[in-house]
Amino acid sequence: MTTDQQHLPEPHDVRISGGRVVSTFTGEEFAADVLLRGDRITGVLPPGAPGDAREQVDATGMLVVPGFVDAHMHIESSFLTPQTFAGLTLARGTTTVLADPHEIVNVAGAEAMRWMTEAGQGTPQTQLWGVPSCVPALEGLEHAGASLSADDIDAMLQWPGVIALGEVMDYRAVVADEPRMRGIVGAARDRGVILDGHCPNLSGAELSAYMATGVDSDHTKNRTEVVLEKARMGMLMMLQEKCLLPDVVEALLALPQLPPLCLVTDDLAADHILSTGHLDHIARVAVRAGLPAVDVLRALTWNPAQRLRLYDRGVVAPGKRADLVLLRGELAAFDPALVIAGGRTVARDGKPVYATEPVAGALSGTFDVEPQTPEGFRWQVELPDGMHRFRAMRVNSRDTYTEAAEAELPVLDGEVQWEGRVTLVRVRNRYGRSGTVFAPLLGRELGAGAVATTYAHDSHNLVTVGTSRTSMAKAAAAVLADGGGVAVVHGETVAARLPLPVGGVMSPAPAEEIAAQSGAVRTALTEWGWDHLNPFMSVSTLTLAVSPSLKITDRSLVDVVRREPVGATVPASS
Amino acid sequence: MTTDQQHLPEPHDVRISGGRVVSTFTGEEFAADVLLRGDRITGVLPPGAPGDAREQVDATGMLVVPGFVDAHMHIESSFLTPQTFAGLTLARGTTTVLADPHEIVNVAGAEAMRWMTEAGQGTPQTQLWGVPSCVPALEGLEHAGASLSADDIDAMLQWPGVIALGEVMDYRAVVADEPRMRGIVGAARDRGVILDGHCPNLSGAELSAYMATGVDSDHTKNRTEVVLEKARMGMLMMLQEKCLLPDVVEALLALPQLPPLCLVTDDLAADHILSTGHLDHIARVAVRAGLPAVDVLRALTWNPAQRLRLYDRGVVAPGKRADLVLLRGELAAFDPALVIAGGRTVARDGKPVYATEPVAGALSGTFDVEPQTPEGFRWQVELPDGMHRFRAMRVNSRDTYTEAAEAELPVLDGEVQWEGRVTLVRVRNRYGRSGTVFAPLLGRELGAGAVATTYAHDSHNLVTVGTSRTSMAKAAAAVLADGGGVAVVHGETVAARLPLPVGGVMSPAPAEEIAAQSGAVRTALTEWGWDHLNPFMSVSTLTLAVSPSLKITDRSLVDVVRREPVGATVPASS
Repeated sequence: MTTDQQHLPEPHDVRISGGRVVSTFTGEEFAADVLLRGDRITGVLPPGAPGDAREQVDATGMLVVPGFVDAHMHIESSFLTPQTFAGLTLARGTTTVLADPHEIVNVAGAEAMRWMTEAGQGTPQTQLWGVPSCVPALEGLEHAGASLSADDIDAMLQWPGVIALGEVMDYRAVVADEPRMRGIVGAARDRGVILDGHCPNLSGAELSAYMATGVDSDHTKNRTEVVLEKARMGMLMMLQEKCLLPDVVEALLALPQLPPLCLVTDDLAADHILSTGHLDHIARVAVRAGLPAVDVLRALTWNPAQRLRLYDRGVVAPGKRADLVLLRGELAAFDPALVIAGGRTVARDGKPVYATEPVAGALSGTFDVEPQTPEGFRWQVELPDGMHRFRAMRVNSRDTYTEAAEAELPVLDGEVQWEGRVTLVRVRNRYGRSGTVFAPLLGRELGAGAVATTYAHDSHNLVTVGTSRTSMAKAAAAVLADGGGVAVVHGETVAARLPLPVGGVMSPAPAEEIAAQSGAVRTALTEWGWDHLNPFMSVSTLTLAVSPSLKITDRSLVDVVRREPVGATVPASS
Repeated sequence: MTTDQQHLPEPHDVRISGGRVVSTFTGEEFAADVLLRGDRITGVLPPGAPGDAREQVDATGMLVVPGFVDAHMHIESSFLTPQTFAGLTLARGTTTVLADPHEIVNVAGAEAMRWMTEAGQGTPQTQLWGVPSCVPALEGLEHAGASLSADDIDAMLQWPGVIALGEVMDYRAVVADEPRMRGIVGAARDRGVILDGHCPNLSGAELSAYMATGVDSDHTKNRTEVVLEKARMGMLMMLQEKCLLPDVVEALLALPQLPPLCLVTDDLAADHILSTGHLDHIARVAVRAGLPAVDVLRALTWNPAQRLRLYDRGVVAPGKRADLVLLRGELAAFDPALVIAGGRTVARDGKPVYATEPVAGALSGTFDVEPQTPEGFRWQVELPDGMHRFRAMRVNSRDTYTEAAEAELPVLDGEVQWEGRVTLVRVRNRYGRSGTVFAPLLGRELGAGAVATTYAHDSHNLVTVGTSRTSMAKAAAAVLADGGGVAVVHGETVAARLPLPVGGVMSPAPAEEIAAQSGAVRTALTEWGWDHLNPFMSVSTLTLAVSPSLKITDRSLVDVVRREPVGATVPASS
């Protein structure tokens, strides 16, 4: 009664032969042929076992692993639309993402959320969504292009494809039990969705208070002892590139048990993805940091699938979704040769091979700001003539944190005489409001020039940094001419520009074009003297007032740790 | 702004002080006070940290761990109603169960399912439900008191508290793609519920075909190499007592990664629970078999919570449900001193301490069978006078499997002359049908006597085993007089009886009374000569035709491996 022909009566669609499957349950590699029908795995069989299929895939010499699952990321950070992003990252093995579109939703609210959740639906990538929890990121401290109430968020939590509340970044407000965040987190908890966290170095009683609301993950950079504390406390630790340091990995491996870990990308730009990879790159970083390859694989597949409550993936098993990556060479190389999503071959040798539609532009009407001229970069203050001590932001070369510093500058006729003395940051509201805030920036040896960007976490106002009013005006004007984006000026000349006409944060151009442009911006920033592992991120997070310690918004400088606006000058007492 | 008083503004309900929390994420033990409010954990704080509470619990010298979660079990196996079961097992630390009521639903169908899912709702235990997938267990091979179609099951899958399709036991039918099981499994897959499995030693292409339907767990006893194969293939392995053998554990620990494991109870009787424990007992068995205590704890808590898609438990963490067990001594002892469920202290020193309602009887009208007399135990056959070779079941002393054997017996005037020669098994349909099947039973050195039971997997017909017609009639009559249950007869005297008036499989009596009765049955069986680790289970699974290799139902003997009815006599050719 039970011959093989009867067990597998219909022909399969695909047979992947000759490879070795890596089990994300046991860490073993074992020779097996994998059979697919429709979007499902229908067999994992000893090599040569019966089972016809219409299409053969030769996996000789390759490892067959589950598609990678990204449990925390923002598509906008790539500057790509969801459609273009899918092609670029499927080619690196990322078959599922949970995306938190908080950049574009800060720009254009519910309309942007709707556009994002629908844009990638025709692609073979599973794109799931978190509703941004912090629009604006910090209530009362900045103006974004939109503002989402608990009721707005509750409504969006019921949209198709939405499974989470996006990272709860305003952790200080949560810890302090402030009404806005209490309402938002409460709405999500009542809906039973995933509550994603963001709480750098939060610890002790404050960590407890934050977690007590139901938020139970973190992907930020923490001191090693805080990584361990959070894991011990039952917070799901998500590790991005900057977190994957040898001492962190060593400390995790020294625990009695390895906690459940997810590897995540958070913010990766198109050029970075094209040149180094997506989750595959994070996997290699993790291997280099000392995490065993089988633990890396589980943290790319099974663990994030569980986190996202996707029971149909994360392991190469009959009955599960046919999201598969064929890797060349040894596992630790995490080198995708061929990617299958939902049973279809979607990428080969790092290139998508499925038919794609051209991407239409969208969300173009998001600017309401005056033409940019050197006049706009006069820093006017209500201070008497003479020297004054101004608060300044000191940046570093590693991460997005800043230190609070100070700069002594002369004031003459109500205007700070900053040119020739310091680099200046200006944040200009771009949503029709008056907000304009200035501050000196320390920690860079820059040549003459400027950078302007409308991609600036999280409100995406117009941020300009430069050494002269004319170079700053040039950069800012170039950005507005492009309908948003980034421009770098060397001297008086625009050296690189990245147009981002979709809400000022994304581009409908092909990935290669955007990567070339963002690569050029990165190079131009570095040549200018912006010395940082990720120069663009370093610029675009000057406004990220949930990242310690002194940041700048369209309303004021912000003491991030105290979550308070602070004035431009240093009080006399300090 | 952020003092501790402001973080934790309201008084908590409970503060558990002086204990050490065991992290199911890292395996660490760490000193911490645990604060509760309502049914939630609201703080896991360094000892002495601020935080008032109305009630203090002294955990000095104790370990604080999450409540235990049982991902595969049957409440009826305890003979207790859901209400009584809750009290008995909460006291051992089991705060959540996924119960598959396939015993009582085989007796009384949807009415029984409704009663079970509602019966335990007032208790502090989280009782969740799987819809029995195999009612009857084997289509065409036995008659139960009910029969559930795919449509019946689909309807029940939408009932409150139902989260799973109960163990898909008819794995041969699934592998052969037979219509009934295809429809049932397909209905559950379409509903997106958990699909629980049962497939002893299934392997290779057949295992692949079984898993391809979406069933992705197994709790049966497998050969060690099959345990490894199933784990490698992405099947969630659930280990019950008989599976927790040192060589299995050693093989699992030798893998590159420990797969996700759940410890489960499956079938534990009240007296066993009272004398040895529930999941706490299984945990100790696992420790003795060599599984490190921290892995045991994770397999009791976090892993099964993930399996059951319960995101609010399985780790002692702020924001999670306040299901906690305080353990005496070292972790490996798994010795519960105090149990908290949903924030309430529900058991102390092995006794429930919450107010319980008396349990009402139910499901009493489930018998339609003639009075039991010695006449009914005449084994009549259509065979000529003379010696004949009859198929016989050979039982062992370890598990529920039987071997196909044979017994040569004389036939005279159309009646097998079995008395004085062999022990006889008779299965009598108790739902108004004519089915009556006999077979010799080998492998026991029994004194004069009999046992009868209406608790007989899974159709719960009236099963009687004995050495004489009079003793068998006496046992069967005693059981019917009790409204169902078990009776053991030594010689001509009823030595022990366990009345089970709720559907013939459960009792509304208090746990201690049932435990005393089932303990007496167990003792009486052993004294009679029924030599087995679990004598009652050995009797009640003679009819379990999904457990290899020769079983008996009200319709015929069954070749389990071939899933076919077989005749009473051995064909001449063999």
